[in-house]
Amino acid sequence: MPELRKDPVTGRWVIIAPERFKRPGDFVTGERYPEDGGFCPFCEGNESSTPPEVIAYRNGGERNAPGWSVRVIPNRHPCLQVEGPLGKRGEGIYDIMNGIGAHEIIIESPEHVEDIADLDEQQIVRALWAYRDRLVDLKRDRRFVYGSLFKNVGVAAGGRIAHTHSQLIVTPVVPKTVSEEMNGALHFYNYRGRCLFCDMIVQERDDGRRIIAESEEFIVVAPFASRFPFEMWLLPAKHSSVFENLPNYSVNELASVLRDALRRLNAALDRPPYNFVVHTGPFDRGEMPYYHWHIEIIPRIIRIAGFEWSTDFYINPVPPEEAARFLRETDPA
Amino acid sequence: MPELRKDPVTGRWVIIAPERFKRPGDFVTGERYPEDGGFCPFCEGNESSTPPEVIAYRNGGERNAPGWSVRVIPNRHPCLQVEGPLGKRGEGIYDIMNGIGAHEIIIESPEHVEDIADLDEQQIVRALWAYRDRLVDLKRDRRFVYGSLFKNVGVAAGGRIAHTHSQLIVTPVVPKTVSEEMNGALHFYNYRGRCLFCDMIVQERDDGRRIIAESEEFIVVAPFASRFPFEMWLLPAKHSSVFENLPNYSVNELASVLRDALRRLNAALDRPPYNFVVHTGPFDRGEMPYYHWHIEIIPRIIRIAGFEWSTDFYINPVPPEEAARFLRETDPA
Repeated sequence: MPELRKDPVTGRWVIIAPERFKRPGDFVTGERYPEDGGFCPFCEGNESSTPPEVIAYRNGGERNAPGWSVRVIPNRHPCLQVEGPLGKRGEGIYDIMNGIGAHEIIIESPEHVEDIADLDEQQIVRALWAYRDRLVDLKRDRRFVYGSLFKNVGVAAGGRIAHTHSQLIVTPVVPKTVSEEMNGALHFYNYRGRCLFCDMIVQERDDGRRIIAESEEFIVVAPFASRFPFEMWLLPAKHSSVFENLPNYSVNELASVLRDALRRLNAALDRPPYNFVVHTGPFDRGEMPYYHWHIEIIPRIIRIAGFEWSTDFYINPVPPEEAARFLRETDPA
Repeated sequence: MPELRKDPVTGRWVIIAPERFKRPGDFVTGERYPEDGGFCPFCEGNESSTPPEVIAYRNGGERNAPGWSVRVIPNRHPCLQVEGPLGKRGEGIYDIMNGIGAHEIIIESPEHVEDIADLDEQQIVRALWAYRDRLVDLKRDRRFVYGSLFKNVGVAAGGRIAHTHSQLIVTPVVPKTVSEEMNGALHFYNYRGRCLFCDMIVQERDDGRRIIAESEEFIVVAPFASRFPFEMWLLPAKHSSVFENLPNYSVNELASVLRDALRRLNAALDRPPYNFVVHTGPFDRGEMPYYHWHIEIIPRIIRIAGFEWSTDFYINPVPPEEAARFLRETDPA
């Protein structure tokens, strides 16, 4: 019998329909970038074909020239612009403001590698440092309220350029999904006096069926109310609501756990298209006792149809316990 | 300069990025069903290849035999099952219930037509009657709380069978999106004493820039905070929160307005894949003064990437005023 499960954070219901269960090999994902092979603007040596860099980590060398390990540039076609006032205003019942914000690209390797999971751990550490540095810098601007870090890997996941990179969109408002997560978690905190995510980690460790990988400081689970087959959440085991407050000594471990999780996914599902997104606290708040940053990894192997759009109700043919078992047993090497 | 606009109902922000403006011809949508042409289980004469019908409108003739105009069948692979108790239960911090509900297919024509908009008006009237009849029947079951009516047209919109049909998924909980709309609208009602959607209709009529089509009883607009290029909402001008309470004499007019809207879309964007969804009040409530049923029509012509998933924040390259003007000026014939 199918099951309805509720995500305890957002209240979103999911239909887990094992009658429709598919095995991992049944998801045919195809090539991530079927037409790749042409000129790549993100490769070392092609710096002049992108907008000038915002920051780059380099061993000497000139700005916008070879010699870097991670390079951050503005998006050439930004969806928001950095300069200008917020201009908040009404128009009858509607609210509007200027499209102020930042839209940057974090190029995670000078070489043409297509997946962050194919980099060595030290290079992933550098990419994570760049995430942190950009958030710390941009949050100084009081007009900005939230930084969305995300990655689109493969055309089916919205990716356009194969060379491994992430995007950062900084907005003057908190995105609705993050607001909802904070509200749900606050509600729980007001009632129980504990962080809902911390409770979830305790329960998942006790249960064990949905754990994919674990280190001392991080845990990777298939969430109880997974919306998508093989969805993964990576959470810090120690409470923190702000990604960029990650202590220096934890960055190495995060790089290792993230690499392991993505390598399992690539091995299990034959390098599927995927999105990965960081959910963290807004810029205008400090550490919150009730919210908990995390990374959501979403393989894009089933098509989203009208029902999902219309309702935020998802039908998942792979129970998260099965997904976790399979990913746990996959060799990430 | 791009603009941030807030949907007054849900609080969702949208980035309207006209710098990225595309003309309608720039959206290449391709064939809806590139591999169509084989055996169709929904065509008249092939009744034995579907599960037995739930209801059918017919001029005489036997059940599950030719002679029908609209036919409703259970989904062969339902995501929920009709029989059984709800079995609501907890598992630590998680909530679960049995996957009880209904999943039906409404076949809108005995002939192999691929779009409801290609049917004549009287046939669309019959399909709308079937929507209503099924909702009225299923809401008698006290275990069921909500009926989601939707349509996936084209493979890119999640469609599998080309023959024109809609789906009805009935669930024992209210979908999150509808709850959010009701909460947002209730908040407005408590503050202003009026229906937010009714106020929106007044403002749109005054303004005129986002109106696509209008009749005495219905209005089709490009919503102020459109998430997608050429998104359309069809609303009854007279307040009602419950779709199935539509008076008999209004069904003809709804069929005509819906047909007109979809024909404009098909002509303007060269028959794009699309979803259409009915948002209406839950079964366990009567008419609500603050909620307003409506149909959302979403062309699936841009790809949804990590940012949208992660945040419920959408980037729309086509300002709704431009979309409305274009659709308004398109000949629906």
